Amino acid sequence: MRDPRPTPPEGQQVSNETTYGYFGPRGTFTQAALAAHLESVGAADRLDASVPFATVTAVLDAVQAGEIDLGVVPIENSVEGGVSATLDALNARDELYIRAEVLVPITFVLAARPGTTLESVRAVGSHSHAWAQVRGWMEANLPAAHYVPTLSTAAAAEDLSGLDDLTYQAAVCARMAADTFGLEVLASDIGDNASAVTRFVVVSGPGHLPAATGADKTTIMLFQHDDHAGGLLEMLEQFAARGINMTRLESRPTGAAMGSYGFSIDFEGHLDDARVAETLMSLHRVAARVRFFGSYPRADARPAEVVPSASDESFADARDWLEQLRTQG
Amino acid sequence: MRDPRPTPPEGQQVSNETTYGYFGPRGTFTQAALAAHLESVGAADRLDASVPFATVTAVLDAVQAGEIDLGVVPIENSVEGGVSATLDALNARDELYIRAEVLVPITFVLAARPGTTLESVRAVGSHSHAWAQVRGWMEANLPAAHYVPTLSTAAAAEDLSGLDDLTYQAAVCARMAADTFGLEVLASDIGDNASAVTRFVVVSGPGHLPAATGADKTTIMLFQHDDHAGGLLEMLEQFAARGINMTRLESRPTGAAMGSYGFSIDFEGHLDDARVAETLMSLHRVAARVRFFGSYPRADARPAEVVPSASDESFADARDWLEQLRTQG
Amino acid sequence: MRDPRPTPPEGQQVSNETTYGYFGPRGTFTQAALAAHLESVGAADRLDASVPFATVTAVLDAVQAGEIDLGVVPIENSVEGGVSATLDALNARDELYIRAEVLVPITFVLAARPGTTLESVRAVGSHSHAWAQVRGWMEANLPAAHYVPTLSTAAAAEDLSGLDDLTYQAAVCARMAADTFGLEVLASDIGDNASAVTRFVVVSGPGHLPAATGADKTTIMLFQHDDHAGGLLEMLEQFAARGINMTRLESRPTGAAMGSYGFSIDFEGHLDDARVAETLMSLHRVAARVRFFGSYPRADARPAEVVPSASDESFADARDWLEQLRTQG
Amino acid sequence: MRDPRPTPPEGQQVSNETTYGYFGPRGTFTQAALAAHLESVGAADRLDASVPFATVTAVLDAVQAGEIDLGVVPIENSVEGGVSATLDALNARDELYIRAEVLVPITFVLAARPGTTLESVRAVGSHSHAWAQVRGWMEANLPAAHYVPTLSTAAAAEDLSGLDDLTYQAAVCARMAADTFGLEVLASDIGDNASAVTRFVVVSGPGHLPAATGADKTTIMLFQHDDHAGGLLEMLEQFAARGINMTRLESRPTGAAMGSYGFSIDFEGHLDDARVAETLMSLHRVAARVRFFGSYPRADARPAEVVPSASDESFADARDWLEQLRTQG
Repeated sequence: MRDPRPTPPEGQQVSNETTYGYFGPRGTFTQAALAAHLESVGAADRLDASVPFATVTAVLDAVQAGEIDLGVVPIENSVEGGVSATLDALNARDELYIRAEVLVPITFVLAARPGTTLESVRAVGSHSHAWAQVRGWMEANLPAAHYVPTLSTAAAAEDLSGLDDLTYQAAVCARMAADTFGLEVLASDIGDNASAVTRFVVVSGPGHLPAATGADKTTIMLFQHDDHAGGLLEMLEQFAARGINMTRLESRPTGAAMGSYGFSIDFEGHLDDARVAETLMSLHRVAARVRFFGSYPRADARPAEVVPSASDESFADARDWLEQLRTQG
Repeated sequence: MRDPRPTPPEGQQVSNETTYGYFGPRGTFTQAALAAHLESVGAADRLDASVPFATVTAVLDAVQAGEIDLGVVPIENSVEGGVSATLDALNARDELYIRAEVLVPITFVLAARPGTTLESVRAVGSHSHAWAQVRGWMEANLPAAHYVPTLSTAAAAEDLSGLDDLTYQAAVCARMAADTFGLEVLASDIGDNASAVTRFVVVSGPGHLPAATGADKTTIMLFQHDDHAGGLLEMLEQFAARGINMTRLESRPTGAAMGSYGFSIDFEGHLDDARVAETLMSLHRVAARVRFFGSYPRADARPAEVVPSASDESFADARDWLEQLRTQG
Repeated sequence: MRDPRPTPPEGQQVSNETTYGYFGPRGTFTQAALAAHLESVGAADRLDASVPFATVTAVLDAVQAGEIDLGVVPIENSVEGGVSATLDALNARDELYIRAEVLVPITFVLAARPGTTLESVRAVGSHSHAWAQVRGWMEANLPAAHYVPTLSTAAAAEDLSGLDDLTYQAAVCARMAADTFGLEVLASDIGDNASAVTRFVVVSGPGHLPAATGADKTTIMLFQHDDHAGGLLEMLEQFAARGINMTRLESRPTGAAMGSYGFSIDFEGHLDDARVAETLMSLHRVAARVRFFGSYPRADARPAEVVPSASDESFADARDWLEQLRTQG
Repeated sequence: MRDPRPTPPEGQQVSNETTYGYFGPRGTFTQAALAAHLESVGAADRLDASVPFATVTAVLDAVQAGEIDLGVVPIENSVEGGVSATLDALNARDELYIRAEVLVPITFVLAARPGTTLESVRAVGSHSHAWAQVRGWMEANLPAAHYVPTLSTAAAAEDLSGLDDLTYQAAVCARMAADTFGLEVLASDIGDNASAVTRFVVVSGPGHLPAATGADKTTIMLFQHDDHAGGLLEMLEQFAARGINMTRLESRPTGAAMGSYGFSIDFEGHLDDARVAETLMSLHRVAARVRFFGSYPRADARPAEVVPSASDESFADARDWLEQLRTQG
């Protein structure tokens, strides 16, 4: 249960000077995510001063360089899966941490310049992830249209609005992008999966770990010593042994060789929870490398379910008992 | 060690009428994979009669419809990871099976119309996966060039060769594509990872399971009953309990909800190996669903390492012993 | 729920010629167990023809030699644990199998020759296992009495009745023994644990495996290849992986070296249950040796709880699916 | 490798006033164990002042009551297994701890009053554990002799020497007992297992935890919350997860009900080793109860093998890393 009037969690206080960047241009779902996040921390007025960047990489570079305080990028789509560019870019930068997450329902429209009819659409521009999510609608309604890849859904809309020699007549994008760039909506809710959601993360530099709220997530990347099935098993057992639920598991190739993977993992709990601290230390011991990307409040504010043997009290009792053994045993 | 003169494995005999399709256009790495496969089964002369398709989906549809006997598509890149389009398209079709795999080293060139200088390149077209693999070179050598996404690397080259109003002046593609479409190579070996390899699979309809060779792989997709950490653990333990090495593990969202995954897995061994048969049956019992994509010879012909307790002999001994217990126990 | 009128399970038909032996002398709890067993199989009239033997070993030798058809021996006490002599004697004989189990509540009396007073008892004879179970009563009521070990509780009573130069004046034994040998009961229900139960097994030679009833137990002895913690873990995981409950786990030294153990195990289910068959075969593969001691109906007739994924149907479905893959995959 | 000149480990300094008790009478293997232990701590002169007790329980009661400082009792026999009386008596007393272990090779002799011939032996007295270890020899050499149970092997010898109306003519005991009580050895080395060894422990009250030596053992008793196979598995996984070898595992009934067990366990390592401390705390969290019986130097001085991920350094590194995350993450 959260207070309807948003109070920013400790460590996330936003001042008038806090600067934000996002994967743009204006009109992307990422901008919508940023808007929702600012709303939740009581800083909706910072949206206009936020800076759009052309790529996920550019957002993260700007955070790393200190040009902006916080950057918003997509990390996971309920239909298409992990956003590889974001996962890989985070892995490649040692000083970036996730401070918050935002869930945004994804609904697509088909937009075109005013006056365009559906019948006249012979090609459609969009980002390949969006295209993948409207294939069914396209096959049913525009079977002859061919696909033109673009850098983002908003870029498809922006170009359609501004450029004259385009090879496509309609864009698949968010309604916000259609509005932003003065396009007309030919069809709405054209996504094949009505419950599609994209998860975005708010990223900053080091030193701002949010306080534990009881409803937190932690994100890490695990690399195993060698690539045998048992290695992953041994690492996953560390979570199971302490009753910790994973909420996301993505394999990412390390690039070293075919079959060499790292595992990008979200799990319930905060670095300051005893079960999480011990799990992280165990992983540090058995994995080749553990990259910690931060602990932060869950977007859905759902408290972690903790079995009695994994509660902070249980860990504290065990430590007291051990100390007693040292002196009285 | 394989005979240098290729003998097609049982079940893969290629007749003069066998028809092939691939993810085209001509000049893609997929066509190179098909060429290597045909060479290995002694049917190099079938290359010219093979049909390029515009998308991975189109190749698989053609196999499913019986328009072609075998289709070649990329499934995994050592740098970028699983090819989502292929994994998802295979999952969506019940009657397709993998019959062989091909590994192709990936080396990129920067190609342009004859007479173009590197300095005059302001934009570069390519598939987003290829672009991801040359980012380092681009930043060092063409930092100002912007990226234009295309449907494939070969499409970038083909369009560059044939269309006049393009928004890019150079393409990142395979040398074969540059040659095919009459482009000049401005720079070669521009991939950031010199050992990049892409894995392709040869797909057919049902009823052609290749015989076991002792150096085989099996590909499956696993769906768990509910999305708890323990569920994946329980499934992975089935492999570990029988000494089976996994060679690829990819999570793919099921689309049902955020955090709902299936796992695309390659592992060592063949359906006809006792340890594999029992593992598959166990997974069938504990998983919500197991989709079997076939057992096929490994491209590198490396025999599986089998611990004594997981050998066919050990399974046969155990069965004999059990039968004895039934009558003499 | 079992029919109140006992019908002998298939494979346990008792004819007029079936001969029984038991760990005697008359009056032991083992004779009581035999009586209960004969009652349950509708052959109460065979009790008188049954033969007492002086030791557990002698009973088992007689079965092995074919002198008797079935022998009854204690195998486990709820207070004292496994009866080592029985476990070790069964292990040492390859051709003996457990066909039934009997549970007998254990209540002890203190018995003496008629006329003896409690005050005059300075020493008490009994089997060491019985002595262990009445220590509390003895300390409270006869603190000065010292203990004289005997071969069995009934032997203590029999000797007390028949021999004159005994070093003890009272015996701890079953009421049946006091009655049998004409002793007077000085105190009854003197056991420290009111719910003490001893489990007895009915043993025969090979070839009489009882049919599965749905409420069965199986007894085995496991020997690991080498004595590391992981070895036992790997064996126990075979049970857990198929949802099989263990009801007894006893470690027994192999005698080879300090720290070299075998594990005597009872678990729910019957050799003819698919989950049990596969577990036994798995153990056969990973253990150094598995000794099967039989599957037999549970004394308490409680049906095994079987998770859906471990049911016979689930195993049959998995096999059908696999067969389909072989031809249609 | 140990220094030939024994130096008492820290925490085990023996003064002139330190008093010892043992499971007697004189002449038992336990006295031999005490002699070996005193030798190893440079206090051989304390043997004469040591007190024999009639039972294991009496030794432990005397330690608990402070009548003696240290007590020596058998805990495990390589042929017969755990000494139930000792395990159960330790479990029943909260304030007793194991401070050292001693291994004594067990060789039996058949002893009788001077002048007795082998042929005249019609009955043999001994403790039932000893009798179990000479059965083979007896069957081969004295097949007609029957067995008379006694309280200990030394008691059999002592009684044979001192009492006139005995029911046996020879005793199975240690050579030391035969010598002590003036008996003649009719046969020696009559044990069926030439490598039989018994392990004894030196027990004291609280507050004397020996320092870690790098070659230590720890003894605990584990009780699970409920008696499912998974419960034991979960507890054993705590050891395996930290690379800890168990050297003894004994199940002991709790007495509460048939099938309710505790597990008496010895494992490698010392309370002050990081991997042991974390394992103990984990067990404390998941088990119903953990009883710690002490950490003490191994009799064979063999250093524990520790995998790199379980070393004290690895634990310290992991803690440092976690602390860094708290401030810099």
